[in-house]
Amino acid sequence: MHADDLILISVDDHLVEPPDMFDDHTPAKWKDRFPRVERNDAGDDVWVFEGATIPNIGLNAVAGRPKEEYGIEPTAFDEIREGCWNVHERVKDMDAGGVLGSMNFPSFPAFSGRLFAACDDKDLALDVVRAYNDWHVDEWCGAYPDRFIPMGLPVLWDPELAAEEVRRLAKKGVHSLTFTENPYTLGYPSFHSDHWDPLWKAVCDTDTVLSIHLGSSGQLAITAPDAPVDVMITLQPMNIAYAAADLLWSRIPKQFPDIRIALSEGGTGWIPYFLDRADRTYDMHHLWTGQDFGDQRPSDIFRKHFLTCFIADPVGVGLRDEIGIDNIAWELDYPHSDSSWPFAPEELAEVAEGVPDADLHKMGYENAMRWYHWDPFANGRTREESTVGALREKARGHDVTTKSYDKGRREKHVGIEIGKLAPTA
Amino acid sequence: MHADDLILISVDDHLVEPPDMFDDHTPAKWKDRFPRVERNDAGDDVWVFEGATIPNIGLNAVAGRPKEEYGIEPTAFDEIREGCWNVHERVKDMDAGGVLGSMNFPSFPAFSGRLFAACDDKDLALDVVRAYNDWHVDEWCGAYPDRFIPMGLPVLWDPELAAEEVRRLAKKGVHSLTFTENPYTLGYPSFHSDHWDPLWKAVCDTDTVLSIHLGSSGQLAITAPDAPVDVMITLQPMNIAYAAADLLWSRIPKQFPDIRIALSEGGTGWIPYFLDRADRTYDMHHLWTGQDFGDQRPSDIFRKHFLTCFIADPVGVGLRDEIGIDNIAWELDYPHSDSSWPFAPEELAEVAEGVPDADLHKMGYENAMRWYHWDPFANGRTREESTVGALREKARGHDVTTKSYDKGRREKHVGIEIGKLAPTA
Repeated sequence: MHADDLILISVDDHLVEPPDMFDDHTPAKWKDRFPRVERNDAGDDVWVFEGATIPNIGLNAVAGRPKEEYGIEPTAFDEIREGCWNVHERVKDMDAGGVLGSMNFPSFPAFSGRLFAACDDKDLALDVVRAYNDWHVDEWCGAYPDRFIPMGLPVLWDPELAAEEVRRLAKKGVHSLTFTENPYTLGYPSFHSDHWDPLWKAVCDTDTVLSIHLGSSGQLAITAPDAPVDVMITLQPMNIAYAAADLLWSRIPKQFPDIRIALSEGGTGWIPYFLDRADRTYDMHHLWTGQDFGDQRPSDIFRKHFLTCFIADPVGVGLRDEIGIDNIAWELDYPHSDSSWPFAPEELAEVAEGVPDADLHKMGYENAMRWYHWDPFANGRTREESTVGALREKARGHDVTTKSYDKGRREKHVGIEIGKLAPTA
Repeated sequence: MHADDLILISVDDHLVEPPDMFDDHTPAKWKDRFPRVERNDAGDDVWVFEGATIPNIGLNAVAGRPKEEYGIEPTAFDEIREGCWNVHERVKDMDAGGVLGSMNFPSFPAFSGRLFAACDDKDLALDVVRAYNDWHVDEWCGAYPDRFIPMGLPVLWDPELAAEEVRRLAKKGVHSLTFTENPYTLGYPSFHSDHWDPLWKAVCDTDTVLSIHLGSSGQLAITAPDAPVDVMITLQPMNIAYAAADLLWSRIPKQFPDIRIALSEGGTGWIPYFLDRADRTYDMHHLWTGQDFGDQRPSDIFRKHFLTCFIADPVGVGLRDEIGIDNIAWELDYPHSDSSWPFAPEELAEVAEGVPDADLHKMGYENAMRWYHWDPFANGRTREESTVGALREKARGHDVTTKSYDKGRREKHVGIEIGKLAPTA
């Protein structure tokens, strides 16, 4: 298929929260304690909340920037592309990149909202989570409901309150909850406890997908403190196999047969090996470990419950039938460094050369629509006006380059170590 | 190819050290301090060394046992198959399993010999490592030099002494050194330091392969203390991707262009995804991370330096050209629980249906011979008498079943937790 003819919904992008996001969502009593943006002495814009200071990392907002300027130093809003934090500019960037729909993970609260969960005052924390979700759903996604798949942040410290928030959001049309790869490593009971059952029941009742983003365990894939950062970048997606195995063998699919989980930014090419390994583990070991899937095998369980996600993964596209053609969704990863924006459609068309149109439509947008119960065509939008070619036509003249860093400011940050940064995942 | 016509060399099996192994290798001054076997009150045979007690775990010696009896409890020598620890019985089991050649990893010292490295008296430790290696090379492999690929244990605490031992062993024809997935997690400088350079130089000078077995980082792939053991079993092979990435991006292939590394029991089906991911990481990031492979890419570096290993991996066999047909070697994993002994040839023939004979010979035995500089045909043995069918003909009547556990003894161990066991890897 020619890149222009693709229709693309991305199930994994990122937003950088704008400084004014809480303006209309802050209860009067928390006026001085809600998260706020400050500019520090180094010239970085940082979020400040209850004693914590969270910078926005350069690598998390590189869209449009030359690769030589990628890096992990903190940045300021006026140094990054406006599409990162301004929804109107974002939609223009989506048009220029040929992308119809997008689901946006959070930045400063960390993927599972653990920054808010770390707040000792749980009344404050709950109001912040709700305010974040209201802003995200009503303002960010609400500005362009046919362009954004809405997603909620969890109330991580209380499964009953988490369930309540999921039900509240579902009434607003939300069917995605960003969650952690491993609650145990965040200090909570594991996926093997019954602690989370109220939440699992709520996501099943409301057809909500647990969207588990790589890195959301709070643990980076680091082999040694002196390992080059390339090691971590290489390993991070496959690291989500830990979450896949942990959930696959847990009581959750057995007790909650409607549970659905997305392995966001996890890649797809390793999945066939993983499924074969899980099946072999079952065949060789279940008689002593006590696992029992009845007349099914682990790979059947996986295909029932898991969505896999890829940016540009020739191995996974080639093995799509071994993964399950209904279990694969494309993603853009804008504005992060793994994204090929604005050339992602060309990249996908090349990777998927020879793939039948029907398969490419499933991976490109239909699976995303079905898994997330989200229909951009519900209010009259047509597929013809939603192709890569049609969207780009609309965006003609939109500048896709991003201005360079101020070199002097950047040099102040040279040598910063990734382990020293505040939570980014 | 019919299973009977295969020729098989396994690059990953395991031996259980017999109680008398040190009898002819103990210097007089260490008579009372060398490792010895004791039977404890529970009836288990355990190795005792300098205050440490190391049981032999049931799962490490299940060959011939019904799957219902697999488990992680400690065992006694008379409870496990004699082929685990008696080289003459082992060769009969190899014949019955159709396997010509075999490389045997250690059990009680852990894969990288870290039990000995933990000994405070380094004079004693060095003599134990040398004695272990002499026994392994001269007695175990020496009894049937055309059936065993010899492998050395490293002197883990001293790179100069380690280099010296590698050179000493090379003079005996040894071209394999068992090593750790990650020295950093064992408390030593990482692969990114220059600490190990004398050892890297020695293995390059002597054409010795670093054979890195899964689990040799000393860290099991455990997601949470209450996770079912199936999670760990599923993840353990792919976990070796950490070592692959760590070494691939390290200074070692750049500084020591003759270094060769085997990812033992690591599987193969995930490798094409891993290589694509490494190449993408290079393309997207090397301009800021500073990695430089000249006119090559990470996948080229990988194929030059790494051997991948599989037991029965339909995904990997299907993707053999994406991995590199010269970079794949078959393994049996006798007597561990992932092995299909004595039916492994039938399993391989099924997995490799339709694979050209030339490819199957490379994966089945030729790559193992070349990588490990080991030639079972050097002294007159023919290929015709080395096929699965010919070996099995020789072993006709050999009993491949293993007697059941004593149920009463076994029940004493029910509920034992894997985390409480002494180092097994």
